[in-house]
Amino acid sequence: MKLQAALDTLTLEKCEELLEKAGNSIDIAEVGTPFILKEGMVPVQALKKRFPDILVLADTKIMDAGEYEAEGCFKRGADIVTVLGVSYDETIEGVVKAAKKYGKQVMVDMIGVKDLAKRSEEVDQMGVDYICVHTAFDIQETGQQDPLEDLKIVNQVIKNAKSAVAGGVKLQTLDAIVQEGAEIIVVGGAICNAEDPSNMAKAMKERMI
Amino acid sequence: MKLQAALDTLTLEKCEELLEKAGNSIDIAEVGTPFILKEGMVPVQALKKRFPDILVLADTKIMDAGEYEAEGCFKRGADIVTVLGVSYDETIEGVVKAAKKYGKQVMVDMIGVKDLAKRSEEVDQMGVDYICVHTAFDIQETGQQDPLEDLKIVNQVIKNAKSAVAGGVKLQTLDAIVQEGAEIIVVGGAICNAEDPSNMAKAMKERMI
Repeated sequence: MKLQAALDTLTLEKCEELLEKAGNSIDIAEVGTPFILKEGMVPVQALKKRFPDILVLADTKIMDAGEYEAEGCFKRGADIVTVLGVSYDETIEGVVKAAKKYGKQVMVDMIGVKDLAKRSEEVDQMGVDYICVHTAFDIQETGQQDPLEDLKIVNQVIKNAKSAVAGGVKLQTLDAIVQEGAEIIVVGGAICNAEDPSNMAKAMKERMI
Repeated sequence: MKLQAALDTLTLEKCEELLEKAGNSIDIAEVGTPFILKEGMVPVQALKKRFPDILVLADTKIMDAGEYEAEGCFKRGADIVTVLGVSYDETIEGVVKAAKKYGKQVMVDMIGVKDLAKRSEEVDQMGVDYICVHTAFDIQETGQQDPLEDLKIVNQVIKNAKSAVAGGVKLQTLDAIVQEGAEIIVVGGAICNAEDPSNMAKAMKERMI
């Protein structure tokens, strides 16, 4: 079970400080979408160089030109890229092709997918590494979606890929997720906005199996 | 009718050369998604600084955290950002909120939307500026989608937003699109990969009304 810290709102310097202090509690450092929109693959390259033993995920949310866009990210040091579950099969397959070429990995972000069970079954056949249920930041307050319930749906249908879960995970909701089981648990705000981010990362990692 | 050149595969230097030579043929310079994944808002800032009279569109394909992500782009010089039609209403509304705050514009990219007429009607009520039909690069060769037919669907339902069209538009297919009518016609490969990109941009702009 891996802890992925989504680094969305911190500067590169603060990210490096967090990863340094968190020791081996953080398995995957996610360079979040807003960070990529601002600086591209520059922080991905910087983190990979400084922390060669931590996996760096670029939250690219690829929607088109799968092979071309993924290749550009793998070339620049990303270990894992994300592609949207709502994209065409051809796009996901293109990202998988690029990953195989570079010996890297693919996470499918299921944000906004209407029929989660059906799409997860389809995506599971495409050679992807992780299928990530993701309650959008923009709808977290509406309570219309529960990451734990979504995770159960995906866990029931996958045969090849491993599951991941993202979207508002915090210390209070962690145990139930750990019990259900997921290969990767993604935590953003609960770590980055904590009074002591590295301590929070450690506390969360300790509760994981 | 505006010509938007999608700058996906050129270096910043080549983009600047193209915009310089194309004179006023190119109304909107699009910093494409692969370019953003590589360099973030850096090329957006650079183009806006050098060409203050050309509108710069950042093809961000926002899927979540609409207000936050759009604000980051508007702050750095983008005149128009894109948000995905497959995203939640809350995300599109967040992008619109940021645009209104900065006096900038929003294009909704309808790539991957299953029921184009229904979603266009919904999105048209959200205060967006443009609804862009978009045949994904990854499925252009399959022939399963026709930008012109999609454009007709959107033109029939919109009451507030203006229409835009993207995805494999070339000189041979331009006249039919011009005849159907769209506020923005997006051209990528047909310009960027032309023997003489600036001449191609001029030739295409001349055929537009």
